[in-house]
Amino acid sequence: MRRVLSTSLPTHVGRSVTIAGWVHRRRLLKSVAFLILRDAAGLTQVVVTDPDLRARLVELPEETVLEVTGEVAANEAAPAGVELVKPAVRLLGEPAVAPPFDLYRPALAATLPTQLDHASVALRHPTRSAALRISAAAVAGFRATLDARDFVEVHTPKVVASATESGANVFALDYFGRPAYLAQSPQFYKQLMVGVFERVYEVGPVFRAEPHDTARHLAQYTSLDVEFGFIADHRDVMAMLRDVLAGMLAGVAERAGGALATLGVELPSVPAEIPSVHFTEALRIAGAAADEPDLAPAHERALGEWARTEHGSDFLFVTGYPMAKRPFYTHPARPGSVEHRPAVGDGGAEAAYSNGFDLLFRGVELVTGGQRLHRHSDYLAALAARGEPVEPVAAYVAAFQYGMPPHGGFAIGLERFVSRLTGAANVREVAAFPRDLHRLTP
Amino acid sequence: MRRVLSTSLPTHVGRSVTIAGWVHRRRLLKSVAFLILRDAAGLTQVVVTDPDLRARLVELPEETVLEVTGEVAANEAAPAGVELVKPAVRLLGEPAVAPPFDLYRPALAATLPTQLDHASVALRHPTRSAALRISAAAVAGFRATLDARDFVEVHTPKVVASATESGANVFALDYFGRPAYLAQSPQFYKQLMVGVFERVYEVGPVFRAEPHDTARHLAQYTSLDVEFGFIADHRDVMAMLRDVLAGMLAGVAERAGGALATLGVELPSVPAEIPSVHFTEALRIAGAAADEPDLAPAHERALGEWARTEHGSDFLFVTGYPMAKRPFYTHPARPGSVEHRPAVGDGGAEAAYSNGFDLLFRGVELVTGGQRLHRHSDYLAALAARGEPVEPVAAYVAAFQYGMPPHGGFAIGLERFVSRLTGAANVREVAAFPRDLHRLTP
Repeated sequence: MRRVLSTSLPTHVGRSVTIAGWVHRRRLLKSVAFLILRDAAGLTQVVVTDPDLRARLVELPEETVLEVTGEVAANEAAPAGVELVKPAVRLLGEPAVAPPFDLYRPALAATLPTQLDHASVALRHPTRSAALRISAAAVAGFRATLDARDFVEVHTPKVVASATESGANVFALDYFGRPAYLAQSPQFYKQLMVGVFERVYEVGPVFRAEPHDTARHLAQYTSLDVEFGFIADHRDVMAMLRDVLAGMLAGVAERAGGALATLGVELPSVPAEIPSVHFTEALRIAGAAADEPDLAPAHERALGEWARTEHGSDFLFVTGYPMAKRPFYTHPARPGSVEHRPAVGDGGAEAAYSNGFDLLFRGVELVTGGQRLHRHSDYLAALAARGEPVEPVAAYVAAFQYGMPPHGGFAIGLERFVSRLTGAANVREVAAFPRDLHRLTP
Repeated sequence: MRRVLSTSLPTHVGRSVTIAGWVHRRRLLKSVAFLILRDAAGLTQVVVTDPDLRARLVELPEETVLEVTGEVAANEAAPAGVELVKPAVRLLGEPAVAPPFDLYRPALAATLPTQLDHASVALRHPTRSAALRISAAAVAGFRATLDARDFVEVHTPKVVASATESGANVFALDYFGRPAYLAQSPQFYKQLMVGVFERVYEVGPVFRAEPHDTARHLAQYTSLDVEFGFIADHRDVMAMLRDVLAGMLAGVAERAGGALATLGVELPSVPAEIPSVHFTEALRIAGAAADEPDLAPAHERALGEWARTEHGSDFLFVTGYPMAKRPFYTHPARPGSVEHRPAVGDGGAEAAYSNGFDLLFRGVELVTGGQRLHRHSDYLAALAARGEPVEPVAAYVAAFQYGMPPHGGFAIGLERFVSRLTGAANVREVAAFPRDLHRLTP
């Protein structure tokens, strides 16, 4: 008999069906036993009255994998309004040991490190698997939004000859006897691919040898990268990002409703136009000194509060980041544009502010993006102005010799997005097998 | 004015539009000039009669990025039946040098190594970009097929503490002062996730320190990994693979029709049931000795011919691979099953053949898959029988202590799939930035 999922049982009342899954919990009463079976979709209550089967249940501990054939009976008192009666049980997989913590309790009692040490079993708990379902749904929404806008998905190298973003925090490896590095981002490749497809995205792992042990950094995370050409400036990129975020949340609503309910998460709405403030205003709102070169986490939190109070928005753009704090490929603010301001302190006035932006989600930086340089001569000039050598990025810069349109893009950290969405205190709660300073297994 | 794509011009005849793209080719005649502009969708012919603009065109070489506003005129003689007249041109991005080879010719004249050295410009050629569009469409079809069957997408670690598939061909790296390795496959993780979601897939990079310089191996490639539980045996996995392949080809037909036309590729059809032969029959068909432990490339080619002639199929399953040639997690053929045969030579009869299979596509191994062991005690026994130590795979094996269903899966090499589909002689032709023994840039 073909197996059905637990959630479909209400459509089978009065009929015989086969279900399968894990023994989630047994309640062995005197004359009856209740077996709660867990499958990918949910839980089923199986009523065992046969004394032989009841005796056998004693020997089938939690997490035993069973196939159960029985009759679907309506019962308002049962968790899902139905239960399985007159069951016949077939053993599919027996556990060798008991789980290190109880999976049937509403919340996992184990500490996060213990959960991570036993990820393969901890992730079976509905609260942990729910975050990963939300993650998958968000990525599906990301792709659907971009596919509908003629973006092409690309796959770029994760092993590179030189550090992409900066020389620091990079993992070195032995590549057939030569030094190589794990890519910190697909930045260069996605820009080059704008010359091919105009609009590209990539969903893939990026690697940061992050030496700090924080609740929001991972050594490997999933980056959702977007880059596209023929833009007027970074405002086109911000508009695209707005649509992508709305699409990701729509994807979560559509595909992961059950997971949201499990975690008690309500989705934020994305304003038709996300409010934005210039970096100089952001400092003022956050109560920071006017010559601060960057926003500290406390400033971001204050800005998150402000966006909520002033605009009723969980999202806030901060535009016009100082050039000094952005990578060399960042396009400066154009004189006369809304992002262009007189420099504070001794920065050169012309290039003080950039067409780079951050997006804060509930007071945490979620996305970095902006317009990039697209002229070969501008790349050479930008490196010279910073006193940085061309050589380490020569292959990258050379690719801009062949004619490139104005372009820009952004990168969303998937785990950070999901952790902010679900209210997870630690980004490791929403990664299946996190990697960090101390953790390389499982 | 909002920019439109070249392919939409027939719907704008008589109206003024703005297009943008790269100067693909100029034909400067005496009184008129033709400018062929290339965008992501195709080519547009722009007719230049104004002497000043004609003079300016001389200074705008191939690969210059332009925005052109003009009037759409029907002209049966023009390549797409329409052309742009009375153009006004705006320069968006000027090249610094000429491309190292002509992009406007029907075929790229440069050798493959030269193309790969200048990938950012070579990939602009329609024949090269077409393969990548087919690749993206195939992955979209892969996901759509599995999403419709309740699979959940996962993202697993690419940096691991020990080699997954075998100790050989693995890249070593320095992980915060500890030795670590690049994952050769998500095999272990996808199996563990069957315990969480029952059905999972992953699209991601895998790494093989392949010391041979062949036309079909890459040091990084994109692996399409599938794993699912509650199967009867590997035949359920083969049926799923059949549907996935059909879905990938449907995705290509739906999303990459233009790319197929560019390459002159006709899609194969996937039989409702892909023919399959047992390993022992495969040896016989290929004319190999009955005690050969594996199929050589020449055998695979012979089998591909046979499948085409005997079954009219581009696809052929070879089942019942010898246990000796499969990894320790492979499930042996069950006595009495169609895969179970008397062993040839001195192999132990019981465990001679496995529930592991390969799928050949046009005479080349495309997919490896099968049923896996799911009982903890079976893992320990399998390792003991092979004389392999538990320690290097202890974390993996330990995860099977907690109750796992019968399960199996497969992995498709994306670049290999696309190269067989398009008839590319070298897998490097269908990767954007291939990595191999000699190549680490661009």
